[in-house]
Amino acid sequence: MTLPAAMALRLEDHAVQPAARVGVIGAGQLARMLHEAAVPLNVEVRVLTEDLGACAVRAGAVPVLGSDQDLDDLRALAAGCDVVTFEHELADLSLVDELASEVPVRPSARATRTAQDKLHGRRALQAGGFPCPRFRPVYDLEDIHGFMLEIEGPAVLKARSGGEGGRSVWMIDDAASAKRAWDEAFARRLNVLVEERVAIRSEVSVLVARSPNGQRVAYPVLETRHVDGTCHEVHLPAQVGDDQAAQAVELGLHLAEALDVAGVLAVELFITDDGMLVNELSLRPHNSGHVTIEACATSQFQQHLRAILGWPLGSPRLVAPCAVMVNVFGNDAGGDPSHQLPSALAVPEVYPHLYGKLAQSGRKLGHVTALGERREEVLARARAATAVLRR
Amino acid sequence: MTLPAAMALRLEDHAVQPAARVGVIGAGQLARMLHEAAVPLNVEVRVLTEDLGACAVRAGAVPVLGSDQDLDDLRALAAGCDVVTFEHELADLSLVDELASEVPVRPSARATRTAQDKLHGRRALQAGGFPCPRFRPVYDLEDIHGFMLEIEGPAVLKARSGGEGGRSVWMIDDAASAKRAWDEAFARRLNVLVEERVAIRSEVSVLVARSPNGQRVAYPVLETRHVDGTCHEVHLPAQVGDDQAAQAVELGLHLAEALDVAGVLAVELFITDDGMLVNELSLRPHNSGHVTIEACATSQFQQHLRAILGWPLGSPRLVAPCAVMVNVFGNDAGGDPSHQLPSALAVPEVYPHLYGKLAQSGRKLGHVTALGERREEVLARARAATAVLRR
Repeated sequence: MTLPAAMALRLEDHAVQPAARVGVIGAGQLARMLHEAAVPLNVEVRVLTEDLGACAVRAGAVPVLGSDQDLDDLRALAAGCDVVTFEHELADLSLVDELASEVPVRPSARATRTAQDKLHGRRALQAGGFPCPRFRPVYDLEDIHGFMLEIEGPAVLKARSGGEGGRSVWMIDDAASAKRAWDEAFARRLNVLVEERVAIRSEVSVLVARSPNGQRVAYPVLETRHVDGTCHEVHLPAQVGDDQAAQAVELGLHLAEALDVAGVLAVELFITDDGMLVNELSLRPHNSGHVTIEACATSQFQQHLRAILGWPLGSPRLVAPCAVMVNVFGNDAGGDPSHQLPSALAVPEVYPHLYGKLAQSGRKLGHVTALGERREEVLARARAATAVLRR
Repeated sequence: MTLPAAMALRLEDHAVQPAARVGVIGAGQLARMLHEAAVPLNVEVRVLTEDLGACAVRAGAVPVLGSDQDLDDLRALAAGCDVVTFEHELADLSLVDELASEVPVRPSARATRTAQDKLHGRRALQAGGFPCPRFRPVYDLEDIHGFMLEIEGPAVLKARSGGEGGRSVWMIDDAASAKRAWDEAFARRLNVLVEERVAIRSEVSVLVARSPNGQRVAYPVLETRHVDGTCHEVHLPAQVGDDQAAQAVELGLHLAEALDVAGVLAVELFITDDGMLVNELSLRPHNSGHVTIEACATSQFQQHLRAILGWPLGSPRLVAPCAVMVNVFGNDAGGDPSHQLPSALAVPEVYPHLYGKLAQSGRKLGHVTALGERREEVLARARAATAVLRR
């Protein structure tokens, strides 16, 4: 005897429960990869989005239609969820704070504010005694001039929030470049800060996870390779000394504690001749950590889920001597990398990840990871597949 | 300026295309894991199902409501797909054959018939000169008696199709057990065959993949550990000699060629004192191959997608010296393993996969994989996590 399909559905719906439900503010590629990590754990991922075609929804995350600037919509996301988390820092955090009185939000709105607004972040770092470039909030052009006089060197004007990929960063060397930068920031109504431009030897990223009960793990230090302020490659392990790597990890673990992080924390660090300085904070899975999907025993996405759910954290152990991740950006013609996928798969042992986003020139559309014994060989494979996807 | 959500959705819908669309006949855990493998490749998986609560749908595969016994429903699944494939062998293959004139079906209905009906399978093996136990189709009790006289030893009565997990297999040692077996099979309207019961030293599974252009790859031989005819554990690599492993792989690759397989082929083999015999064929990803998700450079699920799409096949290389997979069956109380997941994750470095199915005693609800250096240690971890999930 078979039940009518509709009735069978209703019966199953009541009976089968996921291991947990996680609400995600945002529905882009980070939410998509959180969903990918959630499926084997039978964890349901719900995403708050204004676009049912968002790439996390295409992968199967359950959409909740709404805005992260609306408390009712945030409540609709949270309804029935064990915990709410972020894939970006653009939500109205005062509303998220209200939400937190009804359902656990991890990390907290308070902690997330340090990533949402670079000024809050810098002040938190300063208060905790963590090294970061000298900085000053900027409310008019005079603030920049005053800061330049003080530091006696080149500076950078930065938007305090948003501004991925170097589009809201201006190099300042003199009065003329200061005026150009300020005029553009002012025209775009951006809140900005100015900071000293340090001589960077390399950039690394420290990825740690912390659970509400205080359990912490740290991944091996990642080296990030940038072009025009945008991360293009991640090399694992980073080419830094053991002492420096240990120091970076120590800093990340302390920061997670100081900021009362629950979930994954990514700390971008400048390595200079005089030591390391904190550049940026992300209280969520981070582009540099995509390499952990294949390279580590527990990916940053599964780790984030475990941390925010208060579950035991997983091993961050490297499963191969060497790993490289290369981002796939849209080519100038706006071609879709998906069309090149079969050719890219002809490159031996590469792991392509295509996000299912609308192809546009310069847009981050995916990444390719490769693992192996020797850095140069692994790098060559990852780059070869990426080059094919960008054709 | 923002577009209304509904309009934004329509625009995205037209613009974003997956790399390929694959229609799957079935929506259980194999379809679920095919979907998991498809997401990073931006491949859309559609599943034919009569239950919108099916576990592949819960993970995000696109459901097409319908029956695999109805040509219109099969056509609805196939519409817009690049290829149609199977997660089980229960479809009406004459209808699938018709469908194949409209859209590529891989493997073919003809090839799939060898897995759907053990009698067809045995005959195909015999015709190709592949070793298998002596057998005879059974249409009445006399056929069993005749066969027993001929082989002068113990036999097994088996349903020719369906019958997972030993529920349609009967041991026959004498006239009394023959009668009991035949009576039950007859009462259940099963088509059956009888075959000699061989003295099994161990059981292994050979997993190969073949693409329509003839490219073939073979995974390292898997050892399967059974309890009451049901696979409980998979050990990789198998504890067989190098010669025997090579011979098994050779047999698998030849079989893929002989049956004109497109996709993954799993060959279950009995290892006896006199050599190896083919037990069963599955022309699809197979329970024994779940271990490849973490243990091999390319999982059997991604491999199946690549093979049926005619894309370059991936490396089947083992990424750790040793791997073990343990199936998670529902406990006697009908408890849901999802409730025990946090405790299971406290076991170091295990990979649980829960299928999101309704918990029932004895039902296959998930599996746990572990990797490492030493077999005993890896086995202990996988078993420990599984024991927790079965609490």
